[in-house]
Amino acid sequence: MKIYETATAPNPRRVRMFLAEKGLLDEVEFVQIDLQKGENLSPEFTAKNPMRKVPVLELEDGICISETMAICRYFEEAYPESTALLGRSALEKALVEQWLRWVEFYFAVPTGMAFQHTSGYFKDRMKCFPEWGEDCKTAVTKFMGFLDSQLSTRSYLCGDALTIADINAFTTVQFARVIKVRIPDDHPHLQAWHDRMLARPSAKV
Amino acid sequence: MKIYETATAPNPRRVRMFLAEKGLLDEVEFVQIDLQKGENLSPEFTAKNPMRKVPVLELEDGICISETMAICRYFEEAYPESTALLGRSALEKALVEQWLRWVEFYFAVPTGMAFQHTSGYFKDRMKCFPEWGEDCKTAVTKFMGFLDSQLSTRSYLCGDALTIADINAFTTVQFARVIKVRIPDDHPHLQAWHDRMLARPSAKV
Repeated sequence: MKIYETATAPNPRRVRMFLAEKGLLDEVEFVQIDLQKGENLSPEFTAKNPMRKVPVLELEDGICISETMAICRYFEEAYPESTALLGRSALEKALVEQWLRWVEFYFAVPTGMAFQHTSGYFKDRMKCFPEWGEDCKTAVTKFMGFLDSQLSTRSYLCGDALTIADINAFTTVQFARVIKVRIPDDHPHLQAWHDRMLARPSAKV
Repeated sequence: MKIYETATAPNPRRVRMFLAEKGLLDEVEFVQIDLQKGENLSPEFTAKNPMRKVPVLELEDGICISETMAICRYFEEAYPESTALLGRSALEKALVEQWLRWVEFYFAVPTGMAFQHTSGYFKDRMKCFPEWGEDCKTAVTKFMGFLDSQLSTRSYLCGDALTIADINAFTTVQFARVIKVRIPDDHPHLQAWHDRMLARPSAKV
């Protein structure tokens, strides 16, 4: 199997960290795509993912799966003996999904929008609204406060073990440095959780 | 079980349509929350969902699950004998998730943002950027073109049966009327799919 990715982008990092926690990194060959050069806009890449985004998983038979969470779902289901990161029971799976959605819609998406609209990194292919991007930064900082309060009573975001919600929140905290949003000094629980996440071998891949 | 919802909002409609297709509507009592009056901002509701959004599923033991897809995931896993709408095999589940994400990020989210930023419906609780909202409308129209091309060769968005991707895309097409975006006349495949979806009993709930 191949994963087409851009090593520095947050979504590919989520997938690599997910695979590392499951012990499945060696199942995949990684192929680098240069986003700023627009390699993702080529006809060959568009055939793999019409949305022209990384990462994309290509199976041995050529079937392509795009979207970070769809790729994670594939490995979770296809390797049931590996560590479950999306929950086991119906309730666990639902609560992991709830947390994942909170992290995505209230943290990762605003972080991405703030980056895109204030940096102009993709200004050759999108309209930028810097004031909207600045407003998104406010949402990012606010969600850090929510995370800090939640982590005051437990070690992981959802339940008593690491899940995809921790991975997505951690990679978002790390990516938020590009929009100059860092964990505030008065968020000790979020900082401690971040430092524990950073110490995991999966944070290095 | 109870679902706290707002009958006219698109996300609660997704859950109702999902439950209707699975034959599980009678499992749930629906409780209406008035968003414009801010009933979702009360301390009681915030305790059920700190993000203060509908829908929220409350289980018999009081555990609350928020986020549309988390609620759908709960019913899919807890009622395995009901019609599968999130896929069966690892590959099916991954491809349904891919399609769901495409519909969410490139269609439902821009539709919601266009509504929020151009209508001022929630202007008492958020900053509005109308030009950003207008740009989102362009994305919504563009995605309709993608849907039309995809539906030229098959009856459903993902695979050979209805999935959550069809439900989310259909409720988004319907909700897009509030931002005055309708299926263009030269999109016959999308229109035919929409009309088939509209004829399903689940579209009436």
